[in-house]
Amino acid sequence: MKVGFIGLGQMGSGMAASLLRAGHEVTVYNRSAEKRRPLLEIGAREAATVADACTAEVVITMLSGDEALRQVALAADGIIAELRQGGTHVSMSTVSVELTRYLARAHAQARQRFIAAPVFGRPEMAAAAKLFVVAAGAPETLSACQPLFDAMGQRTFPLGTEPARASLIKLAGNFMIAATIETLGEALAFVGKGGIDPGSFVELLTATLFPAPVYRTYGALLAERKFQPAGFAVPLGHKDVRLLLEAAQSLHVPMPVANLLNDRFQRLIAQGGEKLDWSAIGELAAEDAGLRPPASR
Amino acid sequence: MKVGFIGLGQMGSGMAASLLRAGHEVTVYNRSAEKRRPLLEIGAREAATVADACTAEVVITMLSGDEALRQVALAADGIIAELRQGGTHVSMSTVSVELTRYLARAHAQARQRFIAAPVFGRPEMAAAAKLFVVAAGAPETLSACQPLFDAMGQRTFPLGTEPARASLIKLAGNFMIAATIETLGEALAFVGKGGIDPGSFVELLTATLFPAPVYRTYGALLAERKFQPAGFAVPLGHKDVRLLLEAAQSLHVPMPVANLLNDRFQRLIAQGGEKLDWSAIGELAAEDAGLRPPASR
Amino acid sequence: MKVGFIGLGQMGSGMAASLLRAGHEVTVYNRSAEKRRPLLEIGAREAATVADACTAEVVITMLSGDEALRQVALAADGIIAELRQGGTHVSMSTVSVELTRYLARAHAQARQRFIAAPVFGRPEMAAAAKLFVVAAGAPETLSACQPLFDAMGQRTFPLGTEPARASLIKLAGNFMIAATIETLGEALAFVGKGGIDPGSFVELLTATLFPAPVYRTYGALLAERKFQPAGFAVPLGHKDVRLLLEAAQSLHVPMPVANLLNDRFQRLIAQGGEKLDWSAIGELAAEDAGLRPPASR
Amino acid sequence: MKVGFIGLGQMGSGMAASLLRAGHEVTVYNRSAEKRRPLLEIGAREAATVADACTAEVVITMLSGDEALRQVALAADGIIAELRQGGTHVSMSTVSVELTRYLARAHAQARQRFIAAPVFGRPEMAAAAKLFVVAAGAPETLSACQPLFDAMGQRTFPLGTEPARASLIKLAGNFMIAATIETLGEALAFVGKGGIDPGSFVELLTATLFPAPVYRTYGALLAERKFQPAGFAVPLGHKDVRLLLEAAQSLHVPMPVANLLNDRFQRLIAQGGEKLDWSAIGELAAEDAGLRPPASR
Repeated sequence: MKVGFIGLGQMGSGMAASLLRAGHEVTVYNRSAEKRRPLLEIGAREAATVADACTAEVVITMLSGDEALRQVALAADGIIAELRQGGTHVSMSTVSVELTRYLARAHAQARQRFIAAPVFGRPEMAAAAKLFVVAAGAPETLSACQPLFDAMGQRTFPLGTEPARASLIKLAGNFMIAATIETLGEALAFVGKGGIDPGSFVELLTATLFPAPVYRTYGALLAERKFQPAGFAVPLGHKDVRLLLEAAQSLHVPMPVANLLNDRFQRLIAQGGEKLDWSAIGELAAEDAGLRPPASR
Repeated sequence: MKVGFIGLGQMGSGMAASLLRAGHEVTVYNRSAEKRRPLLEIGAREAATVADACTAEVVITMLSGDEALRQVALAADGIIAELRQGGTHVSMSTVSVELTRYLARAHAQARQRFIAAPVFGRPEMAAAAKLFVVAAGAPETLSACQPLFDAMGQRTFPLGTEPARASLIKLAGNFMIAATIETLGEALAFVGKGGIDPGSFVELLTATLFPAPVYRTYGALLAERKFQPAGFAVPLGHKDVRLLLEAAQSLHVPMPVANLLNDRFQRLIAQGGEKLDWSAIGELAAEDAGLRPPASR
Repeated sequence: MKVGFIGLGQMGSGMAASLLRAGHEVTVYNRSAEKRRPLLEIGAREAATVADACTAEVVITMLSGDEALRQVALAADGIIAELRQGGTHVSMSTVSVELTRYLARAHAQARQRFIAAPVFGRPEMAAAAKLFVVAAGAPETLSACQPLFDAMGQRTFPLGTEPARASLIKLAGNFMIAATIETLGEALAFVGKGGIDPGSFVELLTATLFPAPVYRTYGALLAERKFQPAGFAVPLGHKDVRLLLEAAQSLHVPMPVANLLNDRFQRLIAQGGEKLDWSAIGELAAEDAGLRPPASR
Repeated sequence: MKVGFIGLGQMGSGMAASLLRAGHEVTVYNRSAEKRRPLLEIGAREAATVADACTAEVVITMLSGDEALRQVALAADGIIAELRQGGTHVSMSTVSVELTRYLARAHAQARQRFIAAPVFGRPEMAAAAKLFVVAAGAPETLSACQPLFDAMGQRTFPLGTEPARASLIKLAGNFMIAATIETLGEALAFVGKGGIDPGSFVELLTATLFPAPVYRTYGALLAERKFQPAGFAVPLGHKDVRLLLEAAQSLHVPMPVANLLNDRFQRLIAQGGEKLDWSAIGELAAEDAGLRPPASR
């Protein structure tokens, strides 16, 4: 298929490369042009503007958040203005439920199709086409996009016709991961202060009750205290927790663990930890327990 | 081996049966005699008193908590008084770090051997000899007991020579499970209020990021809201969180998620929920979100 | 002075009446006209539109929140469009720090003066001209408005030239009150479950360590569980905590007690408690302690 | 009256001096003898042992906590063993509800009288005989002790016949104070990061909504960040919160703010802050907000 791909960060670059490898015709756009280059070398065409990327049947966006997506989609020369009638916008970044709802309406008015299809997975999974895709929108549009999802992910979960639900699920999933990091952090502070090696505790957990990639990945990062370079940086983690809490606010759902996570991120940012991997929130319990001197980050 | 087995609750009965199936000679004791009967039928001998059970080389205790173990071990006709010099006490229930330390000293003074070997797993895993055993104590004693652990569990994790560490690990592991229940509960309240079916969210989680038994087991219980009959009742879950917090208190480790869990259990008990499975703490988020009328339990 | 007064809710009506009693010439506006009537009877003039109210030297707004103020101030026929150059807008409602900053800039561009002067006090204090006024803006404008503040309040606290600071202080003050309600609620649940009469505990507190009106007012409401009619309703309390958390978010200040308050309000709203006085958050601890059946509100 | 006074710390010394000034005959005991000296100089008699102090009609204890009181009261040569039949023990320190209950029973069995009469007030109030006394026990014993309470305090609150209730009230009162410190700390971090001087915010609060000594005292300590020398040190504050949580635990009362306070104290202690005044918990919010570098205390 002919695809426009907008947003070539750590995740987007891997996803666009997967599409190319699967034989799709991909035109890539990124605000800073140097990120386009590696993809041009493996066969992508270059879009000089968002509008250029919109000449394809399907435009995929994989941007850093609401603000970026709003600009790319809603500007005078943005996707809604430039995409043909009947064309499809697949929004794959993690954005607010509210913006997803807004885009669904705006595309409908412009007689375009819209799919929300956020993904679970870190950059290395994007590069290996092993993402999980959570997709919602009109059934025929979902079917039409399935070859694209197959090229980027290991499995697609169709979630019905309402795009906002895909956003809700994505935010809930990221919450589960962040909560796992916090919980691991507290447990490691506890056993660590009791004299137990963190690595062996993580090994025990993942060999028994929690044989899941999330526990292996973040357990290892926490045991080794390896928070740089960031696979997923603190401000991105914080953004996702804030989007969750905003959605929870409008649904009137108290979420005490989510509040705690938000405070952890706020503290890291206030103390200069923006460049760390988001798993660094799991280190704060150890600091509070006096296991390590509190860091000026 | 000749084994005395004290404590025939849901877990202990399965474990004693596993020992018998593996060919060990097991003498069983339980305060209420009718729980001994099913084991006598499959070949166990009956002990009429704790002292009777102490004629074996190894005595295993699998009791409801500190109070029960203290009584069985420290009474005038308890294990320490009755077990021969050189005999071994294997403490497999979840008890406080403090009591574990106390028993280690007391057995040493009485020239007896002592192993702390708490287990991870619910009653069905005990029955199927699929437990995970976390064992600490003198290496030669651990080796001597290995055939017993092999008979009851699928894997043993040796944790060094200090029995108290096995207690710490066990409490930390149970904390991880309870935190998972709480986190799942908050996420399900969130997506549920957004109109998403809880079962399909759990399926998605366990098919992607969290393919672990804990998420499958508790995800299903929460999605179906099946809190009775209790596999592990609220007061037992509460006890474990309290033991964790007591140990954290003396180690000076702040654990905010553990505090939240403790409050959840307190609330269930205050409102009459003692008979529910401990996974019922995960239902409180849904009540607070107005998804269901608050229950007088 | 000639004053336009916009917003005649429980607070605004009392404040406008105080201005009239002090001899000021007050033109009142309220979206629903029947609220203007009692003030017309004691000498106010009637404004049929926001623009009518803007013919005065000073326009005071006392509205329900950001949305109402944004509309009244920024609409095509709103205050900024209609107020003369050199005229003054005194914003006295509790609104976001962000909107206060925005209005400060917008009025400056329109060559108008702007004061943020939120007040502390419940409706009965507004009626008795006993409010506390927290005012920030240009010194000469503050001086010019002082007679108005004197007419409505018992004391004015000048807070410098930056209007946004008055908003910050107001939000922090309301947070202190809400936190007092929560703390009282937890303490009353605790002593209540220990068999102590809540009224006598409140009496003891306010006669000793906490002889402050906030403790007397809310202690009495909680001891008597008198949450209707609402002096300050749950959605208004919730709004203030949300504005606080939004400002805290952009300042990167973790505030765990504020998170708890937000969850308390969310729970009340989710369970149908919108009509209650905001002090009803202090009742939730008693429900969780099983002192009273959990209410379907 | 003839009074034995046991425990001459910062509080006890002031209280014993007040008794002497009021004309009572006071025999003082303290484990470390040098603390007795200043009181001997103003007319006290010296007791060389607890037993010596028990020759009086009334023995007052003002000790650091449960452990000290348990030893002084229950040892072989302690108060219960040495006090005459019909003699009175007035327990004025903050101790657990459980120990208060235990002592009430033990004194009854020994045909002695027992009053629990904990006090509110810091050392300077003890020295000035301005304490608030919260007293519970048999009415005739309370009446008999009233002259002593009058000598030490500005007001006595009789709380009925059950001594344990006085302990509950005392713990609840200290919780209210600690919660005020935390709340002030969060508010000061918030306004401080918004550029507002903490001193002027405290002044505003105490001049308006919170004109109470607790807000003045702790507001000033927090605004000036004066945490040494400690009027009431971190471990004592922590002890009181733990006693509260233990009592709350057995009453099944979830108290989320109390949990937060406990974590704050744990963190201070884990990071080496034992010597600070307990108001230092209010500084942690500022650290987490990045207002000040996190301290290795």
